[in-house]
Amino acid sequence: MKILILNGPNLNLLGTREPSVYGTMTLEDIQRDLGRLATELGATVEFRQSNLEGELVQWVQQSPEEFEGIVFNPAAYSHTSVAIRDAIAAVDTPCVEVHLSNVEAREEFRQRAITAPACIGRISGLGVDSYRLGLRAMIDYLSARTE
Amino acid sequence: MKILILNGPNLNLLGTREPSVYGTMTLEDIQRDLGRLATELGATVEFRQSNLEGELVQWVQQSPEEFEGIVFNPAAYSHTSVAIRDAIAAVDTPCVEVHLSNVEAREEFRQRAITAPACIGRISGLGVDSYRLGLRAMIDYLSARTE
Amino acid sequence: MKILILNGPNLNLLGTREPSVYGTMTLEDIQRDLGRLATELGATVEFRQSNLEGELVQWVQQSPEEFEGIVFNPAAYSHTSVAIRDAIAAVDTPCVEVHLSNVEAREEFRQRAITAPACIGRISGLGVDSYRLGLRAMIDYLSARTE
Amino acid sequence: MKILILNGPNLNLLGTREPSVYGTMTLEDIQRDLGRLATELGATVEFRQSNLEGELVQWVQQSPEEFEGIVFNPAAYSHTSVAIRDAIAAVDTPCVEVHLSNVEAREEFRQRAITAPACIGRISGLGVDSYRLGLRAMIDYLSARTE
Amino acid sequence: MKILILNGPNLNLLGTREPSVYGTMTLEDIQRDLGRLATELGATVEFRQSNLEGELVQWVQQSPEEFEGIVFNPAAYSHTSVAIRDAIAAVDTPCVEVHLSNVEAREEFRQRAITAPACIGRISGLGVDSYRLGLRAMIDYLSARTE
Amino acid sequence: MKILILNGPNLNLLGTREPSVYGTMTLEDIQRDLGRLATELGATVEFRQSNLEGELVQWVQQSPEEFEGIVFNPAAYSHTSVAIRDAIAAVDTPCVEVHLSNVEAREEFRQRAITAPACIGRISGLGVDSYRLGLRAMIDYLSARTE
Amino acid sequence: MKILILNGPNLNLLGTREPSVYGTMTLEDIQRDLGRLATELGATVEFRQSNLEGELVQWVQQSPEEFEGIVFNPAAYSHTSVAIRDAIAAVDTPCVEVHLSNVEAREEFRQRAITAPACIGRISGLGVDSYRLGLRAMIDYLSARTE
Amino acid sequence: MKILILNGPNLNLLGTREPSVYGTMTLEDIQRDLGRLATELGATVEFRQSNLEGELVQWVQQSPEEFEGIVFNPAAYSHTSVAIRDAIAAVDTPCVEVHLSNVEAREEFRQRAITAPACIGRISGLGVDSYRLGLRAMIDYLSARTE
Amino acid sequence: MKILILNGPNLNLLGTREPSVYGTMTLEDIQRDLGRLATELGATVEFRQSNLEGELVQWVQQSPEEFEGIVFNPAAYSHTSVAIRDAIAAVDTPCVEVHLSNVEAREEFRQRAITAPACIGRISGLGVDSYRLGLRAMIDYLSARTE
Amino acid sequence: MKILILNGPNLNLLGTREPSVYGTMTLEDIQRDLGRLATELGATVEFRQSNLEGELVQWVQQSPEEFEGIVFNPAAYSHTSVAIRDAIAAVDTPCVEVHLSNVEAREEFRQRAITAPACIGRISGLGVDSYRLGLRAMIDYLSARTE
Amino acid sequence: MKILILNGPNLNLLGTREPSVYGTMTLEDIQRDLGRLATELGATVEFRQSNLEGELVQWVQQSPEEFEGIVFNPAAYSHTSVAIRDAIAAVDTPCVEVHLSNVEAREEFRQRAITAPACIGRISGLGVDSYRLGLRAMIDYLSARTE
Amino acid sequence: MKILILNGPNLNLLGTREPSVYGTMTLEDIQRDLGRLATELGATVEFRQSNLEGELVQWVQQSPEEFEGIVFNPAAYSHTSVAIRDAIAAVDTPCVEVHLSNVEAREEFRQRAITAPACIGRISGLGVDSYRLGLRAMIDYLSARTE
Repeated sequence: MKILILNGPNLNLLGTREPSVYGTMTLEDIQRDLGRLATELGATVEFRQSNLEGELVQWVQQSPEEFEGIVFNPAAYSHTSVAIRDAIAAVDTPCVEVHLSNVEAREEFRQRAITAPACIGRISGLGVDSYRLGLRAMIDYLSARTE
Repeated sequence: MKILILNGPNLNLLGTREPSVYGTMTLEDIQRDLGRLATELGATVEFRQSNLEGELVQWVQQSPEEFEGIVFNPAAYSHTSVAIRDAIAAVDTPCVEVHLSNVEAREEFRQRAITAPACIGRISGLGVDSYRLGLRAMIDYLSARTE
Repeated sequence: MKILILNGPNLNLLGTREPSVYGTMTLEDIQRDLGRLATELGATVEFRQSNLEGELVQWVQQSPEEFEGIVFNPAAYSHTSVAIRDAIAAVDTPCVEVHLSNVEAREEFRQRAITAPACIGRISGLGVDSYRLGLRAMIDYLSARTE
Repeated sequence: MKILILNGPNLNLLGTREPSVYGTMTLEDIQRDLGRLATELGATVEFRQSNLEGELVQWVQQSPEEFEGIVFNPAAYSHTSVAIRDAIAAVDTPCVEVHLSNVEAREEFRQRAITAPACIGRISGLGVDSYRLGLRAMIDYLSARTE
Repeated sequence: MKILILNGPNLNLLGTREPSVYGTMTLEDIQRDLGRLATELGATVEFRQSNLEGELVQWVQQSPEEFEGIVFNPAAYSHTSVAIRDAIAAVDTPCVEVHLSNVEAREEFRQRAITAPACIGRISGLGVDSYRLGLRAMIDYLSARTE
Repeated sequence: MKILILNGPNLNLLGTREPSVYGTMTLEDIQRDLGRLATELGATVEFRQSNLEGELVQWVQQSPEEFEGIVFNPAAYSHTSVAIRDAIAAVDTPCVEVHLSNVEAREEFRQRAITAPACIGRISGLGVDSYRLGLRAMIDYLSARTE
Repeated sequence: MKILILNGPNLNLLGTREPSVYGTMTLEDIQRDLGRLATELGATVEFRQSNLEGELVQWVQQSPEEFEGIVFNPAAYSHTSVAIRDAIAAVDTPCVEVHLSNVEAREEFRQRAITAPACIGRISGLGVDSYRLGLRAMIDYLSARTE
Repeated sequence: MKILILNGPNLNLLGTREPSVYGTMTLEDIQRDLGRLATELGATVEFRQSNLEGELVQWVQQSPEEFEGIVFNPAAYSHTSVAIRDAIAAVDTPCVEVHLSNVEAREEFRQRAITAPACIGRISGLGVDSYRLGLRAMIDYLSARTE
Repeated sequence: MKILILNGPNLNLLGTREPSVYGTMTLEDIQRDLGRLATELGATVEFRQSNLEGELVQWVQQSPEEFEGIVFNPAAYSHTSVAIRDAIAAVDTPCVEVHLSNVEAREEFRQRAITAPACIGRISGLGVDSYRLGLRAMIDYLSARTE
Repeated sequence: MKILILNGPNLNLLGTREPSVYGTMTLEDIQRDLGRLATELGATVEFRQSNLEGELVQWVQQSPEEFEGIVFNPAAYSHTSVAIRDAIAAVDTPCVEVHLSNVEAREEFRQRAITAPACIGRISGLGVDSYRLGLRAMIDYLSARTE
Repeated sequence: MKILILNGPNLNLLGTREPSVYGTMTLEDIQRDLGRLATELGATVEFRQSNLEGELVQWVQQSPEEFEGIVFNPAAYSHTSVAIRDAIAAVDTPCVEVHLSNVEAREEFRQRAITAPACIGRISGLGVDSYRLGLRAMIDYLSARTE
Repeated sequence: MKILILNGPNLNLLGTREPSVYGTMTLEDIQRDLGRLATELGATVEFRQSNLEGELVQWVQQSPEEFEGIVFNPAAYSHTSVAIRDAIAAVDTPCVEVHLSNVEAREEFRQRAITAPACIGRISGLGVDSYRLGLRAMIDYLSARTE
């Protein structure tokens, strides 16, 4: 079971970017942490980050060749990108959307959920734990489907 | 560590209500399942359901006396109840909002998140797994706070 | 054939409340009147009124045990209650929504129809006759389904 | 007691138009059915249908000469026609609006009620029974006024 | 100088329709009155009324053959008819829009001015005097253009 | 019969301000022209202009002492001034609103009519003729009231 | 003169709930304080609090039997409850709405005033003094009515 | 293969109406041009134009008797007519909507597409070529269906 | 303790302006009444009224030199004046907003509260008593601050 | 005559992506098909696809060097990309927008046309035929310009 | 080259008003600073401030007599004053709008730009430097026009 | 002191793109001009342009390594890119937004300021001078911070 952990714009800055909001863990820390959790749960993960909407679209498109599921933090693009939504809807790979912060409690333009309706679920506000729970959710989902 | 699992209106119908949307597990099945998971994670849970907005407000208000955290599926009230939002904001007990269905993909009036901004996070769309992950999220949150 | 006649908030004041708008008949008068009509049409009715959203939700939920249909005047809750809408959608008992006044001709916030889409139809503006026609509609509907 | 049954655009297609939505009865079937019901209730009905907004306006205008009440299904024009609304408000003939389908549960542009506020009431969602109940409503209304 | 006085839906009811709002003069009274005023100002008028949007469109279209200007009370259609607006914009005949009542002080849907932007001006709220002033406005406009 | 001709902000620039839109007549020209027309119609006019919302409010307030009617071009304030609207509604002096340009055909923020609902009518788009017709409208209105 | 002091959801938490926003006085402190003030002004007060919309509706409905006026802090329900608005409008007991905080300066959903239009007035932002002034307002109102 | 070419309000003015926007070809020129193209493609066309919404509704309704497809330029009615939309949806004859001008680049009220969702496609902005391409589209569509 | 009682546009007309809405007391009556109440409460008041937005801005700006608090009825400007809001926010003098009528129950454009968020509280709907309670509120507020 | 056929995000998935919506032809099939049609019409085409907004911007920018016209399916970007709109408006190369599906009949966020106003026309809903007709439209447009 | 530096409401309070937002420089400091800069750039400036919308309108109107350009901080009026916008559009004197704070990052009602579209440009968020840059912008603009 | 001059989509076309709107200077001309100005002010600048949202995000992210400030013309992305806004907010490098045209005077979708709230200020409408003033603003800002 191989899961793609996809990260949208500015997440490469984690740890240095507004630590009071996003915490002090870097994306590498999260990657290491998720790697351990995946092993524990009998899966492997691959970690990618891009600031380009189109590159994220491409990775989603190519996901069926290599991955059984996606844990996706589209960051800013979750509120604006119809292209990413269409990509998720176009492939069979199931996708769980995760957010570090509680987007419902932030600016109004972050209340618009463009990509989430194409996902199977959404987890937000729990910091790095959003990723960990997202990974569990995906593995649970895939296991249930297999049964 | 004692967690309150709070359930809003119509969730007592689970298992019989639109099974294609909400699955065939009853609220009792979920309660049993969460009880096992809680034990496994070194916690205990108490399960309550009410169709009355005011009773849910009261349980949230009284939570600090008995509970360290709340996993809350406010169902329909999550889109309309300022009273529940105010109750969550008024007490110290942290709260995670959970939803069985992917509310972002449903009717427009379900896009309005009134209670979520007062919670620490939100998990939606993953069926019963939303509850399981919500319980984990709360225990992780409380453990991190203790450290 | 047993029909539940459900009445929402403030309908217990009928007869005294703004008689120029709502007429001088009390809820008891309507109950007596509908009882006679039901007998005439070969059915029986049970009459309930509550000011509590949650209690109305519960009565809708329990309706399949005792009733074959509901004639429901949700009054103010018809414009705000997602919980009642979800309850109606969750049970098999068909429901006809009735209103004494012509809600389309009143304040703008009464133009919002939250509960009606979960019902099979809506009758408004005809005073007590809205109830009488609602009862006929439900009996016609149930008879047609039986055929 | 003579009642005008007025039918707006596309209702002449009934029976052939989307039968799953509008049923298999033709407008002639409804006419025959309402004729029988009228006789039973001691009234007579006249049936007219037009696709032209202006012709419907004219029939409403001329109604006081021949009719004591109108049962009106304005169909699509109920959501757009200020002209028909003004015509109903301009004459003394009382009018009940009827709809075959539950308009509140359909597209958003069908939620706009332009003609209904000028009517005494509205009945929707009950198929042909909307017409039957509309006829009863009108006869009840006229009888009550006479008393 | 020949002016077309065009009247939209329900204006044929003038004098009987809500006299408290629209006054007791009939359309014939207005016609006679305007005829006298036209003679006095060295012009002739022709009076037409229709409840059909399309017939009003046609009269506007044919106006250049016979008339030098139009005084137009589109009534309800002034708030909904893109077709009439397009017709006015399509011909060279200048048009002044007139209204008996003060539309800005009425229902919100009467605040929408669809036809007025295609006219050279608008006069409202002055009862029959709106027509008289509209006729003067048109004659002044045509005279000024000739000079 | 003494009429107050009231002019709002920037109208003192008439003749020099965007002549293609507002014409080449100055406010003095209009004053002279209206003076002549008033004499002809057996009335006198007084002409005032102010750029201050509050001064316009005061003139409207004081109008009953000296004037029987107001012809008012509130210019920009017609779209924003609740204070002027309240002043017109507070005094008995009837008021006709006039505009040089066809406001319905301009920017969207000019479609908002704040002062017009407190007036008896509105005339727009006819250049200086809007004033002349406004004066006639007021004199007609006052004469009719006297009869 | 007997006045009902009605308190909506979460007000039972006063003193402990966000003291920086709502102050450190408990509802009991306010009750004691208002009792003294009532005595001073020759009246008596009864104090009730409920988190249930329907119970508040019921207390308003029953108020005419025992009370001459209501001082009502509907808290969160003032922004959402059509049912409470209808109850206030349905009874003769006059009602003054009070709020501890300045609701106009808070979240946008608190700008919606559903219950206030059915009251005779509203006092907000003055902490406990809002209650004291509300009591004075009601006594002044009742005294004036008696004269 | 017989195709109905339907033209809405004001299209009879083509060639004289704002030639800079709509070109100098008349409707007769277009008819002749489309006739030639139809022959070339092995089909025949019939050309109709009406300014009446209801007549257009009727022609759509009757189309199955004579035609296999419709190429429809509803002009102004494409933005306002629910009646035409319902007619297109009610019959089996497929319909392609065509517009001479690029409606997306014009006034905001022309951005509202009421009739287009009931059609199989829409072609706009290409002048007379919109008609030619619409005819090809319909013939291609019918041919594909036959295969 | 010296309090400024500030009155916005049209309040100088009190007593004559729509007495059914605003009562028969003049501003002088209110001034005298408030003077007595101030003396009773150990304070003095100064009364000012202006129809000019800018003059009201200036009086607010200069208030710290002479006054400890402001009781302000901005009338129409409370719904439109960002300038007055900024002035209140810019000075240290606390301000209580008062309204004679229940603004929440009037036209929609009076629901917009521009100045209130810069005040410490708002009292509306209680006629002259709104002023009396506003004065008490300010004196209570200032006394509490002193303690 | 050389035409650029430009394809936006996710169109590389054609044939595998939701075939019920988008058909079973791949982008290569369309390319081959359009190549043949171009030859037939005396033109050549070049086919490009990108998921990157910026790359599409660049291709549009460079188009004048090589191409006489563009047939552009911007897919998801047609509803969000001001950058692509600006690029089309910035170059002389005329552009026709094409869509496989009938966008007017889909989600509301697909009703927003950001890029279309900068194009000469738009063709939608006709599947692959949208491309074929788009190519014809462009060749017709270029031929007409040459004459 | 003589430039008018115009200041709107509450700017006379600079230095004392919310120094954390607007800085500690007074308007006199800015005046002195801009005077020096003007001399350096070979121009002279005149400084005016008013809290009255109408006085600002007048100064803009009279500007052509004395000044070649205006640097204008309309403060609160930039979001509400159609009168000032019309004044700027009515005169030939070019105008640059300046703001001390970054208005785009403040309350939503400050996002509405009523006066800016009539100016040649806008500079905001840079504190006193907004004025300095505004003066440079105007001098650059005037110099370029002269060349 | 090293400043990054960042240019968004389509700015590489400057000089050829709609010269009447954007002027005849190319981006190279601006670069040379700003280079000279920087030298004069004791700073150096680096010039970059990209049509890719993600590349602009990356340059903003990397700016702290090399630059002390950014002068940024995000062009079309200033109205749509939450990703760029987040990038600016995530780094310490201060940013001034500049626009060649007066965006407030253009299409409504250009009124939406997504990136500006994360900048320290915004300069628009002054053509190339917007860049020059932006560079001065940044140098002034950095100098003030150093003091």
